[in-house]
Amino acid sequence: MAKQNIFDNEIFFEGYQKLREKKSSANVLFEIPALYSLLPDLKGKKILDLGCGFGEHCKDYVQKGAEKVVGIDISEKMLAVAKKENSDPKITYLQMAMEDIAQIDEKFDLVISSLALHYVENFAGVVQSVYDLLNAGGVFVFSQEHPINTAHAGGDRWTRDENGNKIHLNLKNYGVEGENESVWFVDHVKKYHRMFSTIVNTLTEAGFTIGKMIEPLPDEELLAKYPDQADLFHKPDFLVVRAEKKK
Amino acid sequence: MAKQNIFDNEIFFEGYQKLREKKSSANVLFEIPALYSLLPDLKGKKILDLGCGFGEHCKDYVQKGAEKVVGIDISEKMLAVAKKENSDPKITYLQMAMEDIAQIDEKFDLVISSLALHYVENFAGVVQSVYDLLNAGGVFVFSQEHPINTAHAGGDRWTRDENGNKIHLNLKNYGVEGENESVWFVDHVKKYHRMFSTIVNTLTEAGFTIGKMIEPLPDEELLAKYPDQADLFHKPDFLVVRAEKKK
Repeated sequence: MAKQNIFDNEIFFEGYQKLREKKSSANVLFEIPALYSLLPDLKGKKILDLGCGFGEHCKDYVQKGAEKVVGIDISEKMLAVAKKENSDPKITYLQMAMEDIAQIDEKFDLVISSLALHYVENFAGVVQSVYDLLNAGGVFVFSQEHPINTAHAGGDRWTRDENGNKIHLNLKNYGVEGENESVWFVDHVKKYHRMFSTIVNTLTEAGFTIGKMIEPLPDEELLAKYPDQADLFHKPDFLVVRAEKKK
Repeated sequence: MAKQNIFDNEIFFEGYQKLREKKSSANVLFEIPALYSLLPDLKGKKILDLGCGFGEHCKDYVQKGAEKVVGIDISEKMLAVAKKENSDPKITYLQMAMEDIAQIDEKFDLVISSLALHYVENFAGVVQSVYDLLNAGGVFVFSQEHPINTAHAGGDRWTRDENGNKIHLNLKNYGVEGENESVWFVDHVKKYHRMFSTIVNTLTEAGFTIGKMIEPLPDEELLAKYPDQADLFHKPDFLVVRAEKKK
C-alpha cells in the first residue's frame, strides 16, 4: 500500500507551517488539550511519537519528564525543522513512514500520534505494529480527524443561510470507507475514511482495550471567546482515543 | 429521571405492531442479524432481555438453548402479547422499567437489549445495573439507534433532489446530547441522544471492556433485492455493541 508524503510538497509545507503558527487553531484549542488529557504521567517513560512533524510534542514530552522520545515522520522537511527547533539529547528523530515502524528494534511505554493516522491506508497494520512495540501495560493515545469529517461529502460540506452561517453538515458516504482525496493547501491530499466501529474493532482485534474516547467540544469559556466554534456542536473536528495493552 | 412508556399509547402500539410485522423492515434486515452475530453460544445460559417487547427474542433464545430467560418491559400491552404469543416454561416476563433492574435478585450470563436503550435517560445508571447483574465473564449485547440518527435534525433530516431521492443527511447537533422529541406514529416520543464517545466511555467507566461494535450496512445481495437501502451508506440506522465483564 502506498505511503503518503504530502508534507514534502513545497506549497503544502508553507501553508501548513502558517496554520500551525496560529494560536487559535483547532489543534491548539481542541485537539492538543484532549490528546494531552488522555496521557499517563510521562516521568521516566519511553515514548514513540508517530508523525512527529516539527517535534513540538516530542520536546513537550521531555519537559514533562519522559526518559526517551523517538519521533518518526515521513517528511524530510518536517524533520529538518524538528531537529533545528526542537532537539534534545533525549529525543531521536527518524525519517520513517508509520507503516514501517515494525523495523524499530526497541519497546516503548507509550505510543502517541497527533493527527496523522487518517493519512494511513493500512490502519490495521500500523495498529498491530504499535501493539507489538508497546511494553505490557503500555498505552496508545492518538488523535485523528473525526469519522464524520473523513466521510467524503462529494461537494459542499456545509449548507449555509444567506448570511453564510452554517445550518447543517451535508453528510454523505459515512458508510463508504477508504481513500478520500481532498484539497488542503494543495490538491490530492489523501485521507482514509474509517467508520467509528472500524476504528474500535481494529484496536480490539489487535489486542487493545479501549480506555477512553473524546470528541472535543467547546466549553462556555471558549465559546465566549470564539463564538464561531459553536459549529463544532453540529460536528466535532477530532476523535481522540486512549487504548491500553494488558499488564 | 422520567421513565417513558410510549408503548402503552393506543395509536403508537398499533403503528408499531404493523411495522414489526413487515418482513423487510430495517430491524429484520439489519439490526437483528447484527445483534445475533454478537451473541455467544446461548446453551445453558441465563439471559436478561431489556425491553423485550413482544417476546420474540426471548422465545428465540430458548430455542437456541438458553436455560432461563427473563424478559422485562415497561409496557403492559407489549407483555400481554408476549405472554400470549411467546410463552415458555423457561421464560419469565416482568413489567419493569429498564431503570429499575437493580431490583432483580439474581445474576445472568448475558444481558441483551434490542432497540430500547435510546429511550432511556439515565444510560449510565442502566449500564451500571447491567454490569452488576452479570456474572464474571458475562456479556452485554445491545442495539440502539445510530448516534448520527439520534442527533436532533431540527427540521428535515434529508436533503432530496427533485425526484425525491436522498442526496445527503442534514446533520445538526451531533454534539448536543440529551432529550430529543420526535414523531414516530405519535408526537412526543422521547429519545436520548448520546455521542459515540459517551456510549463507549459509559461502558468502560462501568467496568466493561468493549468487545465489538457494528454499524450495519447492506451487502451486495441485499442491495440487489432492496436498492433503497443504499441510503444506509450515507448514515447507518443502528449501532450494535458487545461489551464484556472480566472473568
